[in-house]
Amino acid sequence: MGKVSPFAPKVLPHLPAIDGVRFASYAAGIRYPGRTDLLLALLEPGTTVAGVLTRSKTASAPVEWCRERLEHGMARALVVNSGNANAFTGKRGREAVKLTAEAAAAAANCLEADVYLASTGVIGEPLDPSKFTSLLAGLAAEAGPEGITQAAHAIMTTDTYPKLAMREAEIEGVKVTINGIAKGAGMIAPDMATMLAFLFTDAAIEPGPLREILAPAVDATFNAITIDGDTSTSDTLLLFASGASASRGAPHIGLPHDPRLSGFRGALTEVLLDLAHQVVKDGEGATKFVTVRVTGAESAQAARRIAFSIANSPLVKTAIAGEDPNWGRIVMAVGKAGEAADRDRLAIWLGDIQVAKEGEVALTYSEALGAAYMKREEIVITVDVGVGNASSTVWTCDLTADYIAINADYRS
Amino acid sequence: MGKVSPFAPKVLPHLPAIDGVRFASYAAGIRYPGRTDLLLALLEPGTTVAGVLTRSKTASAPVEWCRERLEHGMARALVVNSGNANAFTGKRGREAVKLTAEAAAAAANCLEADVYLASTGVIGEPLDPSKFTSLLAGLAAEAGPEGITQAAHAIMTTDTYPKLAMREAEIEGVKVTINGIAKGAGMIAPDMATMLAFLFTDAAIEPGPLREILAPAVDATFNAITIDGDTSTSDTLLLFASGASASRGAPHIGLPHDPRLSGFRGALTEVLLDLAHQVVKDGEGATKFVTVRVTGAESAQAARRIAFSIANSPLVKTAIAGEDPNWGRIVMAVGKAGEAADRDRLAIWLGDIQVAKEGEVALTYSEALGAAYMKREEIVITVDVGVGNASSTVWTCDLTADYIAINADYRS
Repeated sequence: MGKVSPFAPKVLPHLPAIDGVRFASYAAGIRYPGRTDLLLALLEPGTTVAGVLTRSKTASAPVEWCRERLEHGMARALVVNSGNANAFTGKRGREAVKLTAEAAAAAANCLEADVYLASTGVIGEPLDPSKFTSLLAGLAAEAGPEGITQAAHAIMTTDTYPKLAMREAEIEGVKVTINGIAKGAGMIAPDMATMLAFLFTDAAIEPGPLREILAPAVDATFNAITIDGDTSTSDTLLLFASGASASRGAPHIGLPHDPRLSGFRGALTEVLLDLAHQVVKDGEGATKFVTVRVTGAESAQAARRIAFSIANSPLVKTAIAGEDPNWGRIVMAVGKAGEAADRDRLAIWLGDIQVAKEGEVALTYSEALGAAYMKREEIVITVDVGVGNASSTVWTCDLTADYIAINADYRS
Repeated sequence: MGKVSPFAPKVLPHLPAIDGVRFASYAAGIRYPGRTDLLLALLEPGTTVAGVLTRSKTASAPVEWCRERLEHGMARALVVNSGNANAFTGKRGREAVKLTAEAAAAAANCLEADVYLASTGVIGEPLDPSKFTSLLAGLAAEAGPEGITQAAHAIMTTDTYPKLAMREAEIEGVKVTINGIAKGAGMIAPDMATMLAFLFTDAAIEPGPLREILAPAVDATFNAITIDGDTSTSDTLLLFASGASASRGAPHIGLPHDPRLSGFRGALTEVLLDLAHQVVKDGEGATKFVTVRVTGAESAQAARRIAFSIANSPLVKTAIAGEDPNWGRIVMAVGKAGEAADRDRLAIWLGDIQVAKEGEVALTYSEALGAAYMKREEIVITVDVGVGNASSTVWTCDLTADYIAINADYRS
């Protein structure tokens, strides 16, 4: 558990304050003593919110709470704890959520319906909210605009570094900022958001258009990464828009498909992609960052399924860990995806090196070339399956003995 | 690679000779010197055959050869090599198959169409058939009825022990025997046969009814195991029926659904299950044999999907390796399967110990009980998902650091 990802940034990015958003964090001792594990974010009246939540059939109590609150799309407070996921905790889990929301509403002087909650950590153990509900009023009093780095620390579990990203965009000539934080590490799989990611912007966007721009951006970023193919019960991604840029002349966006949001859409996707890549690079035990690009597929969905079949294959991932250019396993993973692929037209590249062509090893390829490429920290695998024009890109990491060590010992 | 599975049998079962079936094995040096890697089985005229082959979209050349031959369902020879899978080898792969079949037909004095081929080992490297085609005539001359143990050795790759099983059955009061051998180790996943399994019987059964009884038996056995969720390009399971028991008065079965085959069906399923369990127990790096039983599902298919979601989850499998009764990860895997499950009625057992009940930890459960249970070599996980009456059972092993070591080094 002690080993830090080789991709850990040497210097954390400094995120500017966003008007209308304040943070406070605390070491509440929820699971481990002496480590921040509680985050309160306070949001100005009028803040809108959109979110993407796990599709797990055994979703946690806080996920269910957020799902209901997201329907009206307004937010005043966010409470996040790490150390305990409050998942599969039955009636006690729902009670813990209710008690936390009550305490947060009192601390933020808002309605319970405007409180959002997320929990991450061990599954199946009851969460005792009395460990932190009494702390929320004090945290609210001391919350400030500069605390997002501490916030990124407070939501970590087996992560080896905090994940922060920022982009700026203009809406009708007025600058707006998007800040984001995330946590990942394990139980990260496609078909949903990561475990936790929170984004904050001062743009003024109603819940409807906010949802409309968030969904495709998540689909191309957090839904295109995988660490171990396991899908959390707690995945929660929330985007809060304080609207504070309106005071500097930014327009209030009320309708979907507003063309004035094109710059904001791009910046949002970049923040999400930046955070998603940071999550992959801090995958449990990861030593390699892997881009898997599939072209020549029948449909974008087929391309993505084949790409994930490669990215989730333990045999492909262990070969990458061993720096072995074992493209036979890539062929295997294409075959098991069940999507159309023409074995005799299949082509494979490692970076710019063509490994296979028309269904067999390329004449120009040598093992020495492939082996040298595999020593890199960032690997790009491209596969053309030879049946159509659709493509898809996903990102993953390698599977190492450290993943096993971390997960065979996690609770002990 | 040196470590032998803790489940390796102390004594190999002795399989009786089957009339009409002869074996010869040889160390042909296809990949590693000094280890048997070539098997020839000779089958009496009149032998029928049924098979189950990989559904991979990148199936190997020998798999495609077998698929065509199985249509007529008659067999005189089987040639298997280990060390090279002859998969993703393009035109050269098809030529290697053709040359091998020609040499085998000459050696067995039969039609090429009655020759079956299988190759297992590394993918994507050309197989040079001249390494063994010249050996087949000599092997045919020395083939004998007692060589099945050597045959089981010859088809091994990363397997740590040969896999043999036998059952007897009666057809109209006449005893018939079913012998089986298999190889497994890695790239073992549901939705197909294992990499290689060959069964031999002296029953007299036409290809039509032979196919009809084989398919459901494989579905309940080899299609219900997983080691790593990766699906081979080479999976081949063939059942040969020499018909030699007819000389002792056994009836010749020509029509499907013949009630006289009920005993044979049961014995066949037992041989397949025995071999499938041996394959799981010799999974790469395995230290635990795990039975996953899902009850209370909407349909048998849903139950199986949930069971495989648990059995393929790296987080569940690493927890088992760490002897951690981490039932929260079982909840996660139920949730990610995408099939109907009632979170608040979910119940989980480890062996006879009820861990969870009605969506939360059972009052009678303690970590000490669970931790003691997890020290066993054979683990039974039962999950009731609380929405219906259908059930399914699958088998798997744990995921250990040895799996990573074996697969990060396999080709080097």
